[in-house]
Amino acid sequence: MAGQVQKQLGVALLGCGVVGGGTAVLLLKDKERMLAMTGCDLQLLYVVEKNPAHALAIGVPQSLIHDSLDAALADPAVDVVIELVGGTGIARELVSRALQAGKHVVTANKALLAKHGRELFAEARKNKVSIAFEASCGGGIPIIRALYDGLMANEITALYGIVNGTCNYILTEMLQKGKGYAEALIGAQAAGFAEADPTFDVKGIDASHKISILGGLAFGMWIEHDKVHTQGIDSLMEADVAAAIRLGYSLKLIAQARKTAAGVFVRVEPAFIARSHPLAWVNGSFNAVSVYGSSVGHTLYYGRGAGASPTASAVVADLLSIAAGTYPVLFDNLSIWMDRGQSAHVLDTALEERRFYLRLDVRDCPGNLADITRILGANKISVASIHQEEVGDDANQMVTVVIVLHSCVEGTIRKALEQILTLDAIGKTPSLLPILEEQTEFA
Amino acid sequence: MAGQVQKQLGVALLGCGVVGGGTAVLLLKDKERMLAMTGCDLQLLYVVEKNPAHALAIGVPQSLIHDSLDAALADPAVDVVIELVGGTGIARELVSRALQAGKHVVTANKALLAKHGRELFAEARKNKVSIAFEASCGGGIPIIRALYDGLMANEITALYGIVNGTCNYILTEMLQKGKGYAEALIGAQAAGFAEADPTFDVKGIDASHKISILGGLAFGMWIEHDKVHTQGIDSLMEADVAAAIRLGYSLKLIAQARKTAAGVFVRVEPAFIARSHPLAWVNGSFNAVSVYGSSVGHTLYYGRGAGASPTASAVVADLLSIAAGTYPVLFDNLSIWMDRGQSAHVLDTALEERRFYLRLDVRDCPGNLADITRILGANKISVASIHQEEVGDDANQMVTVVIVLHSCVEGTIRKALEQILTLDAIGKTPSLLPILEEQTEFA
Repeated sequence: MAGQVQKQLGVALLGCGVVGGGTAVLLLKDKERMLAMTGCDLQLLYVVEKNPAHALAIGVPQSLIHDSLDAALADPAVDVVIELVGGTGIARELVSRALQAGKHVVTANKALLAKHGRELFAEARKNKVSIAFEASCGGGIPIIRALYDGLMANEITALYGIVNGTCNYILTEMLQKGKGYAEALIGAQAAGFAEADPTFDVKGIDASHKISILGGLAFGMWIEHDKVHTQGIDSLMEADVAAAIRLGYSLKLIAQARKTAAGVFVRVEPAFIARSHPLAWVNGSFNAVSVYGSSVGHTLYYGRGAGASPTASAVVADLLSIAAGTYPVLFDNLSIWMDRGQSAHVLDTALEERRFYLRLDVRDCPGNLADITRILGANKISVASIHQEEVGDDANQMVTVVIVLHSCVEGTIRKALEQILTLDAIGKTPSLLPILEEQTEFA
Repeated sequence: MAGQVQKQLGVALLGCGVVGGGTAVLLLKDKERMLAMTGCDLQLLYVVEKNPAHALAIGVPQSLIHDSLDAALADPAVDVVIELVGGTGIARELVSRALQAGKHVVTANKALLAKHGRELFAEARKNKVSIAFEASCGGGIPIIRALYDGLMANEITALYGIVNGTCNYILTEMLQKGKGYAEALIGAQAAGFAEADPTFDVKGIDASHKISILGGLAFGMWIEHDKVHTQGIDSLMEADVAAAIRLGYSLKLIAQARKTAAGVFVRVEPAFIARSHPLAWVNGSFNAVSVYGSSVGHTLYYGRGAGASPTASAVVADLLSIAAGTYPVLFDNLSIWMDRGQSAHVLDTALEERRFYLRLDVRDCPGNLADITRILGANKISVASIHQEEVGDDANQMVTVVIVLHSCVEGTIRKALEQILTLDAIGKTPSLLPILEEQTEFA
């Protein structure tokens, strides 16, 4: 019968900051509702946090708060440890201890999984428990489940994601309000969408962790995070944003994993994206992931990629699946997990063929455009369009030239760009960005 | 170990038309890949189809084809019957027989579930089997799973969906190419996106079946399909499409289920939708569903809502979940299924308060606008904007007046409209459509 207790699940929460606090609140406040809905009785037994001020402020009973994990690991009533400490140091050690103590682990820690996922999964398996990680990518969006459950009839061929809310917030401000990068970053920090030290986000590192997890799951492979070609948004110029708008594109930080017969392309980079592609519409701190499957074609999953409550939604969904016993079965049965698939053969991104946008600052004097187009032609790169704005009659001033290229191999255009940069009349901060059109479907 | 056979699942496929054919192809072609990926061995044992021409053409072995379900039901090797016959007559009877024979049922039949789901679910439970229905709503989009699994930590408060690809294709053609309804419908039929008799789709009936299923699952209630307030797209005028574009909105057939303290609003209707809402970007035959949860806020799921292969993706995902044993557990444990929740208290849509667009054809002579605005004012309905296009100096010709209203109760504006229609100078085919802004989140 509905509402009957099917399964009690004893929970220890490790880390009670923003996301941990949101999770504690959800577990305490909505316990009865979730029990009635699922038959699973989630019991928050331990909150491990050395600085309990926040935990107490949000209403966690003092009696649950501990300053070490030891008691929780020794308590047979604890079935699951939720790791929300973050980072790859102490978190690595604590997750290992939890697994060795025979506790399932639920984690939002993408850096940890991207670096140590393979050995941690193997360790979980050895101890007959599971690691669930819906909260590690895309916040509350059930994208991990789409890959291990909803789309399981498909061979996944490509993923394109906006998976870092900080970058998307900054880029949206740049695109919609004409802000420069520095100004938009300050705004994002003031609005709570960027950290005081935003390096991890704006350099694309966080997104690279996520795409190595998502791509690995999609393809049933282990993608070494170090092999993800990663470029952030911190060197984007206002001229690039302006050009994207003028050419009818949006500009997004796109994390991509694409499977080919030869291997996989995995990268994070700012890219022009056609306005007809749903990813172009994802604004502010929202995330979205486009998944292309052999049967289903293009599907997309959209929602908040961060924040206390959305991330708690994903953490608690994992708890419910462990309580129901469904997740452990899939963790045992499926071959797609990071410890089971082969290491992906990650291809050199220089081999990938795409369309490109090229911005050059060029001294406005005769022959310069001819030199540029001659070099492109000599490299067999074909120009789709070229724009140079009129700046008045002052000869010799620098003007911005925007060139849209037909599809070409990235290594070739990079080589051509090097040659172009040897010309005297060219500014030294060009911009070369890929252009993503709507992905051809495989259905 | 990965790849080991965990579970064999014997499958009988009932109906081998477009979707059935796609399912058969997927089961035959990708059997080994799915076995390697999931450990589940899906064995297509029976294809029940009285007209086997299509089945044979797509490569179903003659030996699998039967003209009745009898042999499959008597065969203990058959664990699941996939019902892809459609309709509520013979399908109802065959599903019952399958359940009584102790077979799980996987179905894409929204009409059947919307009408008889409650008793069929109870019948399944009595026979200790389950009914899985991912393919019934949103084609290959794993939206049913989002509701019973990914978002289970949430109280779902609202759903807004574009769940009929035929209507969305027609509306996209009207919006993007300026076609009239009749012309767009013929184009949709020619392109294979509309049936020869499109009534079920364009009148909103198909969407009403889907929203009663989705809303019921989201709220853990049984929503009687007859109570869904349903309005189709077949009476939309080109003037409405033009007004939507001019005012900066999109125009979509929106299926909506919204929970309030007093009960639920459930409806299908054409609506203006703000361009800032992701649903406004869903074009062509694609579907999408926005789900608002108490923790996660706004999430959206996008993909192909119909077609052989996307629907097969959903059908086979259900087979894999039954084979793994995960779906039957959730079917047993959760209280959200249609046979378990209370009957929803469906509210009179006249009580709902929203913004509206009102188009009137008005004879261009003095005092008419004053009469209209006087009636609105007398009903305490506040005008946000009013547009009347200049049509030249011919007095007394009919002109189109577009009025955008501030939020008001639907019953009130309908009453005011009746009063307006008693005026001599007003054409008798006005249009009143709601305007949906980005839904306030509950996070």
